[in-house]
This record gives sequence, structure tokens and C-alpha cells, in this order.
Amino acid sequence: MTEFRQDVISGQWVIIATGRARRPENYACKKADADSCGQLPGYVENCPFCAGNESQTPPEVMAIGRSDGRPPDSDGWRVRVVPNKYPALHQDRDRLPPARELSGSKDVLYYGMPGYGVHEVLIEAPEHNRHPGTLSEEQMKLVVESYYLSFSRLSEDRQLRFIQLFRNHGRAAGATIEHPHSQLVALPFVPVLVEQELRRAHDYHLSREGCPYCDLLEKETGSGSRVVADNEIFTAFMPYASRYPFETWIVPRHHRSSFLETTRKQRSAMASILGEVLRLLSCGLGSPPYNYYLHSAPLRTGELPHYHWHLEIIPKLSIAAGFEMGTGVYINVTRPEEAAHFIREKRNIADETWQKDLLRTGPA
Amino acid sequence: MTEFRQDVISGQWVIIATGRARRPENYACKKADADSCGQLPGYVENCPFCAGNESQTPPEVMAIGRSDGRPPDSDGWRVRVVPNKYPALHQDRDRLPPARELSGSKDVLYYGMPGYGVHEVLIEAPEHNRHPGTLSEEQMKLVVESYYLSFSRLSEDRQLRFIQLFRNHGRAAGATIEHPHSQLVALPFVPVLVEQELRRAHDYHLSREGCPYCDLLEKETGSGSRVVADNEIFTAFMPYASRYPFETWIVPRHHRSSFLETTRKQRSAMASILGEVLRLLSCGLGSPPYNYYLHSAPLRTGELPHYHWHLEIIPKLSIAAGFEMGTGVYINVTRPEEAAHFIREKRNIADETWQKDLLRTGPA
Repeated sequence: MTEFRQDVISGQWVIIATGRARRPENYACKKADADSCGQLPGYVENCPFCAGNESQTPPEVMAIGRSDGRPPDSDGWRVRVVPNKYPALHQDRDRLPPARELSGSKDVLYYGMPGYGVHEVLIEAPEHNRHPGTLSEEQMKLVVESYYLSFSRLSEDRQLRFIQLFRNHGRAAGATIEHPHSQLVALPFVPVLVEQELRRAHDYHLSREGCPYCDLLEKETGSGSRVVADNEIFTAFMPYASRYPFETWIVPRHHRSSFLETTRKQRSAMASILGEVLRLLSCGLGSPPYNYYLHSAPLRTGELPHYHWHLEIIPKLSIAAGFEMGTGVYINVTRPEEAAHFIREKRNIADETWQKDLLRTGPA
Repeated sequence: MTEFRQDVISGQWVIIATGRARRPENYACKKADADSCGQLPGYVENCPFCAGNESQTPPEVMAIGRSDGRPPDSDGWRVRVVPNKYPALHQDRDRLPPARELSGSKDVLYYGMPGYGVHEVLIEAPEHNRHPGTLSEEQMKLVVESYYLSFSRLSEDRQLRFIQLFRNHGRAAGATIEHPHSQLVALPFVPVLVEQELRRAHDYHLSREGCPYCDLLEKETGSGSRVVADNEIFTAFMPYASRYPFETWIVPRHHRSSFLETTRKQRSAMASILGEVLRLLSCGLGSPPYNYYLHSAPLRTGELPHYHWHLEIIPKLSIAAGFEMGTGVYINVTRPEEAAHFIREKRNIADETWQKDLLRTGPA
């Protein structure tokens, strides 16, 4: 059984090839790859992100939860945002090569520009051994609030055009530091994948007078076969043309093109459903490594009728190899309908495990 | 030191961020990831691709080197092409779901079609423990000839539009079977990444009246700083906007848009430079896993003045994580100029090792 499916927004084709397939229940992650947060100590002396080790990071950009009067870079915080010590981009113009020194920056064959931008780390908890799937609701709200506050702050830099917030969980998904953290890279241009979403969503809107995400949401909540979780504000579902097994999108039901336009109530609901989906995936798949990233309209575009901010979660269960690299077409060996069904069934166990864990360790 | 570079053909931006960098000499692959072909036996009883085990594969599509009169699916071959036992696509229409059964195949939100296509495996040697970097020149020519013969054969199916030939080497690069093999997936449409190259190359040609690959080649061979190897027909270089450390392209100097239009002499030279580059990368980086894929014009386009067939090799040294998945912008921590310099220096050792190895094991 094999079929092509095309994602309406990205235009990407995928191959759903369940003949070579793994059934959902065969995905349980190998021990070596599974995250081992639960087995880690709460504090690690040489971890730059642990509470008490604030001097090991560059001076903080922001902290949430520290009582008034305590100085920056002291402990007592709940979420802390710091510059990346080894940034991919520099905000400090003195540290950038002048454009004229860049190899052929004026040559169309070798177009280049200085690496201006921002690269920050959002430390999600003072404890070393917690992550968004195991945090209390309260702490998870602070994490999402730190996302929002960082977006707000950076949106004031008029040289930046796009903010990419993302999270790498587990070594196999590219995390090099164990301590729970998200990252944010702000760019002076709109990256190609987002441009593609915007362009196709715009075309859809022109010809059909609707936002493709709003139309998808209506269909997905109507049928329910790919829905994984929902609350009054968000729906989480596995997209029809999932590139990866168990790929899950969290989409707000109320149309807004930018994460910057969310209310505090919406962000609370976001914290809640994000935690829930991560627990479901963790429970169903044996704590797999994963990546997530948030797509929001470029800065200063105003409210767009065709674009809709959302978050995409990709458990790291397969390797994109030569075929995917050459074509951009992904082979997915698990139907999203089956994956969603399998994951929904984990709700009770996932919830019980979480509650027990919180009781045992105290809220973080 | 950090800069943005844009690839003239794909339009993709990369970040060259050498502040967080690894120097070329720090790449030597971890033992666990390194390919261990040299340590493997020449024959493995339950390997479906070893000579003598022909009955373990579906009936062969083609074989090279078997003496006349011996039946198909017997041993004595030098290269053998078989259908993938667990194909991502089916050529046999009876095994495909009818379009009307595909979830919403007529709905623009859920566009789909039956998984028609071809998925074949090209077994590169009868021996279990050889691969393109260690094969004799003679055997390597047969491998490239099998690529060409497969392209020729499949180009006759008028329902196919694009052939993706690729190779996954080592478990970390997605290879699930040790025995040396390439793969080929033929699609009924032009995949998004190739479409993007074609579109931008076409625009370039309209405004500048040249093929961007030809123009690049001229500049690269002129400066030489990113060139890794060359012969009378091909140049291998690390592109200015390399997405991955040590990414290497092999480009024919004579303009042709399709691999189908190559001569036997050109294919011999291709075999020679491909083997050489793989040995250089293997020697410099400690036998890393890698992927390569061949980009050729879609079928039945005729000779295109703007497109230029080529092969891209990507050693698996880094993990594409949340940032890359969200944006399509790659962070590369090694400048291609440094990587090329480092790799060029390995020529003598790489060559000696190969010659010694061939003497020891006999030509394969």
C-alpha cells in the first residue's frame, strides 16, 4: 500500500509507504536514544544552565521569577534567557566581517552578507533533569511566556525580519547540552521554507478566499481521525501529508498570522497543549528525541489573512537520507491516521505518569 | 567570524559560523560511526546482496559481467540491479490503491495519488566488504555504467518524469543493509528541490545568457580554492554556500542537462573522479557515513541551456536540527575553502592506501 500525498501549504509531496512499514507500536525508542532526563541529577556542577552556575553563561538578557531586588545573573529565577555563548550570528557589528571582505559579496555567483542576527538560549527550568513534557503547568506557562517576551523584545530591531524559535531534545536530535532549553535565532531575511509557506498560502487565499490553515482545522476537527489533542483554543493533529512518522502540528483555532498577537490566555492554553502532546509522544514512543519549531509571520507584515502561526513537532524516529536530500520528497512509513489513533490511546497513562512524577519530585 | 552565503542555484541561504567551529582536523569520525567495510567478511550467508544468494532478492532487472549462457539470478555477475524488496513505490498497478479510495484525492486540502513509480537497488559488487571508494577503477566503471543503463531503461516509461539515483553509506546515513549498493527511485513528477534548481537556473539564464553551473565552474577552476579534485572531464569542488561541512559537488565541464546524454568516455571519467573524491573524504574524515545523489534534468525535456547534471556528496558529520528544519537555512561550522584545502592534502595517502588495499584483497 503506497500513495503520494501533497501538503496543501508547503506544496511538498510525501510518499506514504506502509508496505515497508513499521506499525506504531514498533516505534518504541531504543534505550540509547531515549531521553534520560528522569535519571539525571537535578544539579550538575559544570552545567552552565543549572541554577547557581549563572556565571558560566554570558550576562543574561532576561529572567522570569527572580524576586525584586536580586541582581541579574544571580539564582532564584524560574526561566532565564541568555545569549548563546557560541552564536551562529552576531548582533555586535564589531564582531562581523565588513561586507567588502566577504568573498565576492557583490558577485551574483557568490552572494554574501555579514552574519548579522541574534542567537539566544531560553533555559526552561533551574533544574537539570526537567523538560517541557515533565514540567508543571505553572512552569510550562512561564516557558511559553519567555518565548513571547523574547519575540516582543526582538521585534523592535528593525534589521531583523524573522524569528525562528526551536527546541532540540536529545542528542540524536542535535541537542549538545542536556539541561532543558529552547533556542531562538533571529534573521535579517525571511527563510526559504517560510517564504514557501507564505507564497502558497497567499495563492490559496487569492483563489479560495480563505486561510488554508483555518480550512484545514475545520476539516481536521470535523473528521477527528488525525487529531491528537485539543483544548478550547488549540488543536493538535498529525498532518495529512506528514513528512515524518508522528509529525504533529499545534494550530490555534482563532486566526492570527503572528505569535506576537496572542493573548496571555491563549499562551496559557498553548503551554497546556504543548506539554500534553509532548507527554503523549513520550509515552507512546519511549521518550524519543525530537525537534519542534514555531512558524510565525515575518516581522512588520501586519495581520495577514492567509498565514496562521503554528508549531510543528517532529519526533526523531527516522533518518532523512539520500533520496530525501536529493528530492525534498519524504518517505513516511507510518500513516498519520494510524499514528494519531495510537497516540490518543496513551492519554490516561501519560497523564497518570506525569501526575505521579510531579508528586515525587515536587513541582518544577 | 560569521557570514551569510546564498547559493546561486538553489537560492538557499547558509550561515558559515566558524566561531563555534570545528577545524577540519577535528572531524575524524567517531569509531562507532565510521564504516567498517574493511573489517567485514567478503561473504555473509544471510546477506541478500552477496554473490551466491541471488534467490534472496526479487528476480533481477539487469546484471553486468555474467558470462553468456548463464541464467539470470545465478552468480558470476559484477554488478546486479534488482527491485527493492520493500519498495516505496509500485510499478505494478494492481498493487496500488485506486485513486477513488485515497482519502480526499479530489480535495485540494488533501490532494493525493496512487504511489506509481520504481524503486530499485544497484548492487555494486559481489563482495560484501567493498564500496565505491575501495573498488578498482574497472569495477567502479561498471557501477557508473549500471547507473546509466538504469536511467536509459527507465526513461522509456512515459509515466515517469524524474529519476533520483542516490547512495546511503553507513548506518548513520540511513543505510540499512551493509552490502555496497546504490538506489534509484523514479517518480511521476519533478520533485520540489529539483524544480527549485530548474526555476532559478532558468531565471539566471534569461537574465545573463549563461548556464549558472558553467559560470560557476569557470570561476571555481580559475580560483581553485574550493577545488578538491579534477580530471579532463570533471571538476569536484566544495560549493561557496556549502550547507554541510565537506559537501562536495562533482560537475562535468562540458554542458549537458541530462546524465542520459553522457558518452562512455565521460562515464569512465566520472567513475574515476567519484572514487577519488570518496577516498579523499574517507581518508581525511576517518571513513565517515555519507549520502550522495545525482541531479539530472527531468525526462523528456530535451537539452536545456540552463540546467547541468551533477552529483552532490554529503558526508554525515552534523545533524540537521530544529533551526534547519524550521527555516531551510543551514548552519555550517567549517568554511568550504578550509575544508577543500585540508582534503586536497590527503591525495597521496589516500592513493597509497587504496593501491595497497587492492594488492592485498585483489581487484574487486
